[in-house]
Amino acid sequence: MARIGILGATGYTGVELSLLLEKHPEAEIVFISSEASAGQELSSVFPRLAGCDKIRGKSLQNAASCQSVSVDVVFSCLPHGASAEACLPFVDGGARVIDLSADFRLADPALYPKWYGKPHPRPERLQEAVYCIPELDRAKVRGAKLIANPGCYPTSVLLPLVPLAKAGAVGAGPVIADSKSGVSGAGRKPSLGTAYCETNESISAYKIGRTHQHLGEMTQQLARATTGGLPLIFSPHLVPMERGILTVAYVPPAPGFDAAKVRQILSDAYANEPFVKVLSKAEGLPATGHVAHTNRCHIAVAEMPENDMVLVVSVIDNLVKGASGQAVQNWNASNGWAETLGFGA
Amino acid sequence: MARIGILGATGYTGVELSLLLEKHPEAEIVFISSEASAGQELSSVFPRLAGCDKIRGKSLQNAASCQSVSVDVVFSCLPHGASAEACLPFVDGGARVIDLSADFRLADPALYPKWYGKPHPRPERLQEAVYCIPELDRAKVRGAKLIANPGCYPTSVLLPLVPLAKAGAVGAGPVIADSKSGVSGAGRKPSLGTAYCETNESISAYKIGRTHQHLGEMTQQLARATTGGLPLIFSPHLVPMERGILTVAYVPPAPGFDAAKVRQILSDAYANEPFVKVLSKAEGLPATGHVAHTNRCHIAVAEMPENDMVLVVSVIDNLVKGASGQAVQNWNASNGWAETLGFGA
Amino acid sequence: MARIGILGATGYTGVELSLLLEKHPEAEIVFISSEASAGQELSSVFPRLAGCDKIRGKSLQNAASCQSVSVDVVFSCLPHGASAEACLPFVDGGARVIDLSADFRLADPALYPKWYGKPHPRPERLQEAVYCIPELDRAKVRGAKLIANPGCYPTSVLLPLVPLAKAGAVGAGPVIADSKSGVSGAGRKPSLGTAYCETNESISAYKIGRTHQHLGEMTQQLARATTGGLPLIFSPHLVPMERGILTVAYVPPAPGFDAAKVRQILSDAYANEPFVKVLSKAEGLPATGHVAHTNRCHIAVAEMPENDMVLVVSVIDNLVKGASGQAVQNWNASNGWAETLGFGA
Amino acid sequence: MARIGILGATGYTGVELSLLLEKHPEAEIVFISSEASAGQELSSVFPRLAGCDKIRGKSLQNAASCQSVSVDVVFSCLPHGASAEACLPFVDGGARVIDLSADFRLADPALYPKWYGKPHPRPERLQEAVYCIPELDRAKVRGAKLIANPGCYPTSVLLPLVPLAKAGAVGAGPVIADSKSGVSGAGRKPSLGTAYCETNESISAYKIGRTHQHLGEMTQQLARATTGGLPLIFSPHLVPMERGILTVAYVPPAPGFDAAKVRQILSDAYANEPFVKVLSKAEGLPATGHVAHTNRCHIAVAEMPENDMVLVVSVIDNLVKGASGQAVQNWNASNGWAETLGFGA
Repeated sequence: MARIGILGATGYTGVELSLLLEKHPEAEIVFISSEASAGQELSSVFPRLAGCDKIRGKSLQNAASCQSVSVDVVFSCLPHGASAEACLPFVDGGARVIDLSADFRLADPALYPKWYGKPHPRPERLQEAVYCIPELDRAKVRGAKLIANPGCYPTSVLLPLVPLAKAGAVGAGPVIADSKSGVSGAGRKPSLGTAYCETNESISAYKIGRTHQHLGEMTQQLARATTGGLPLIFSPHLVPMERGILTVAYVPPAPGFDAAKVRQILSDAYANEPFVKVLSKAEGLPATGHVAHTNRCHIAVAEMPENDMVLVVSVIDNLVKGASGQAVQNWNASNGWAETLGFGA
Repeated sequence: MARIGILGATGYTGVELSLLLEKHPEAEIVFISSEASAGQELSSVFPRLAGCDKIRGKSLQNAASCQSVSVDVVFSCLPHGASAEACLPFVDGGARVIDLSADFRLADPALYPKWYGKPHPRPERLQEAVYCIPELDRAKVRGAKLIANPGCYPTSVLLPLVPLAKAGAVGAGPVIADSKSGVSGAGRKPSLGTAYCETNESISAYKIGRTHQHLGEMTQQLARATTGGLPLIFSPHLVPMERGILTVAYVPPAPGFDAAKVRQILSDAYANEPFVKVLSKAEGLPATGHVAHTNRCHIAVAEMPENDMVLVVSVIDNLVKGASGQAVQNWNASNGWAETLGFGA
Repeated sequence: MARIGILGATGYTGVELSLLLEKHPEAEIVFISSEASAGQELSSVFPRLAGCDKIRGKSLQNAASCQSVSVDVVFSCLPHGASAEACLPFVDGGARVIDLSADFRLADPALYPKWYGKPHPRPERLQEAVYCIPELDRAKVRGAKLIANPGCYPTSVLLPLVPLAKAGAVGAGPVIADSKSGVSGAGRKPSLGTAYCETNESISAYKIGRTHQHLGEMTQQLARATTGGLPLIFSPHLVPMERGILTVAYVPPAPGFDAAKVRQILSDAYANEPFVKVLSKAEGLPATGHVAHTNRCHIAVAEMPENDMVLVVSVIDNLVKGASGQAVQNWNASNGWAETLGFGA
Repeated sequence: MARIGILGATGYTGVELSLLLEKHPEAEIVFISSEASAGQELSSVFPRLAGCDKIRGKSLQNAASCQSVSVDVVFSCLPHGASAEACLPFVDGGARVIDLSADFRLADPALYPKWYGKPHPRPERLQEAVYCIPELDRAKVRGAKLIANPGCYPTSVLLPLVPLAKAGAVGAGPVIADSKSGVSGAGRKPSLGTAYCETNESISAYKIGRTHQHLGEMTQQLARATTGGLPLIFSPHLVPMERGILTVAYVPPAPGFDAAKVRQILSDAYANEPFVKVLSKAEGLPATGHVAHTNRCHIAVAEMPENDMVLVVSVIDNLVKGASGQAVQNWNASNGWAETLGFGA
């Protein structure tokens, strides 16, 4: 059993992580932190967790008081900015740290201020981190001490795009990712923008073009998969639902590629992946409800005889494959365990 | 006062139309038809209409029995296929007919079977119809006897694209319209695909690429606005909300055009339009909730310094500007009345 | 035309009021106040109002700077506590004031601190106010200078109960009102309790029994309608929808009364009311969607042969009949105008 | 490992059951039936199940062709009427049958036609069935061959009421259960009443008083728990959410009982129950979201000093504790296994 600490447990990713670790046979939870709710039990903040045995009887502590607890693994669900500072002492103490925030995702120290509006608190440590979507980079995460868990939108965009980029299937011109997300992606801090009466019965676009902070990690990873990178355009939307991201990627095909070949590339890339399914033409198009509460990604490629563009659709649950589920999968991969360990259907 | 008949009043567009005509100072309703609910009052089918004085006491009739009623105007909310046959006798009898179905939208008789899967029942009459979004074509609708009211998706796509096409602002390469619609767009006939538990908490893509039946009228209208047409790609989505369409159009700019110029073209085109608002850069991006229950369209253009694509966002209420509101606006325009007549805010 | 000021226009009732006054033929809006958004136009805070001509070009002002504006009528949508102080100078200046807050609803100065947790700021002025649901008390509101507009829950409870109480149809034992409300009833101030992810896909009970602040005005009005009052129990719930209240009232029948007689009492009481409909047995039970966006109340009485209880169901839109619509209706009634003036269907 | 068959797997309870059995260490699935989708895989009907290993590769069969398959246990998710006929051959063949339909819940053959509108197909077999909410009747279910799994509403009503009835805490007068349910309770067959646009943004009451078919099993079980039974009134509502039931029970207290004593009775009754939690006064009131996707029931008792009524609130997930979860719990109990076997948090 691994001794686990969770930093920032009272956000939506913290709750989802608690539910996942409850089921994980190797997980023992030794601390859970929350600045706002220190002293309470997590299940009194989230009655949904009342049946979780592993957190029962453990009061939430503030992060500082957790620093001296001996743990094997720390999952940080803290907001970016705060997360790096809280994580590094655990790395230095020998624990494995899986950071769900954006703090260790960008390798180039110059990029953090560009996308997050302030200097990185510990830029000299960025090189230690391993950014990993296991299906794309699992070899790198084996044994890693500091794991940068990818963002939700990037997971939904990179899973369909990276194999195509690597295969040379992407032609000239902008690649567009039009993504639609549930409201939980905006976090749990109360704001007018996520109030029920402001989001219900309405869909909105926001930060479209090349302004959303997740563009940084997407272009970094696409640059690593290609020579020269891809000129990605990214359009996020807020959809009146709790969870789920659907992305339609519009990919100009390189000469010789079409929808059928693109589907084949993706089918081959993910043929043995337990969490990624590439739909056949007969299986049609996916919906976020098909993967809700799972660590799965379903991908489909639409037919279009003119072949002036290839349309690839992906769906994930932003809180699971887009955050806490992928964090647990990364933990499994870092140990060389089966990546499905602890996941049900 | 104009004597008005409504064919197919018990669908969602029929109900919305009844609400609009209730407020219209020139509208007197003389018949309302429904095959399924003949004999009942419309407000017993839709208690929401209990306060509508103009339909009170009028039983729903089947369409056949309405044919002999003397009317000045007929609005048809019947499904495509059925609508043409029911409308033409009224045209022949001298009434003005505004058909909300797709039956008279495609001028080329060969296109109807392509998009609707069966021959047009009266292809020889297609040339009589005037397809009209008033902001784009109001001169043509003045005095027209048979008006083809545009589809919901096409309205959300053509309002931003047509002025750009006419101005030569659209460069080479595919134009993409990624559209997201509320569930009422699928009609009121019960089906698994529109059941609450199948659509709630999930977004799905469907008929993406060049397969949705609305592509026909969009490409027809874009061809009329350009020389050579535009290679439009259209991606509809089903969003868990009742009403609203948000479209992001990805437009490759012609040389010399960028977001600022595109915004200016649209601002100029709609400067005097009461129902269309082009947002300034400072006003940000729209949401469907901003136009719900109105006949308005809000349009925004996103900034992107690289200028390898121009992103234009539009929102409408699919049941109002995308259907019944535009039908009333077309009726106003056909009479030379103020197009806002009968509309509140 | 009456010169109208709106205090606190940027909450949900303020927005609904603006939409209603836009349609009202006697309403001219001369000021709209908001502390938080002073200097902006209301339609920039609520793009939904972009088509409202009456507020166009009028910047939001803070309440203090509105005190010197000459107006005929003031509607206050301010929160309780703040509203009384802001309203009274207008009363003293000769304007008619319609207060949508709770500040003037309770005649007994001792009750305000009990239900609202602090002393009333101006208890000596309580006797001037007229509490009025027009269908129940319209004679009192004619010419009134200070009108206390009823709360949303009380409107849904008193419309079915007061005629029964007056008719002596209510027997011994507690009367229960089990009410279910949409989220807009909780106001627009961001809070965790009204965040999308906390309220969606969940129904909760809160302040049930005799603890909700609206119980004060309900028992006051029931005491005025009876000798001895009624021992009301009130159970509010939060439902994942924007608007609407459905109340089931459980009424122990007095000897000689049953469901049929209760329905007859209500049918007689509201026979000539344009906004209240008592459903026949054949018409079944109501849903809040039947009255959404209207000023209507639909009431049904369920059959139960054992007659050990009579069940009365009422539905309203909490933002219209439960707040701003009733305020406009009260304004109409205070002037002796048709109460439907300015309302569509 | 037990060999399991599922009859009627393509409804919402069938899907939930498949998810639960996937996690259960003793469950092997040998057949899954569906008349409508025979020949397909269940995960092609419900892509949400794509990660379920236990059903992979097993085509749906029609029920008739499953009759000859050797199984240890059959769970029937068929509709009432059809279920009894399909279940009995398995009982006769020696398998344990857990029927989630209503077919074996009512012991008195005269009651079935009263509540279900047609004669019971096999009334002579009713006496064999054991109706069991494990927390209330687990001794009876041990070794049972034919288990009648309780309905969703009855589970939410009986868990709070039965211990009070047994303790003599219920005084004279009607007991009211005002229940609010998500839409999945109405099943998966498309109908106008469960269409998205008809149920979204609206709450409705239906079959209130003593007309809902679930009243039969509630009064049967309350009669078994008391001498003389309880005069229950039951008011179901349809709430715009997928899953969850919240019931407020209004209980007239017997002399000497009050809210505190009632809470103590319930706390004592469920002190050792893993799936039932009685909230302390400090813990407040429950929401259905607190138990969504769990087999749990949370119960709270509201304080009311006047003590003229005791208010008890319960919440369950209608598809889990109200159907498939309780079915698995009953299976566990019938084998003498820990009832939590196979359940996560």
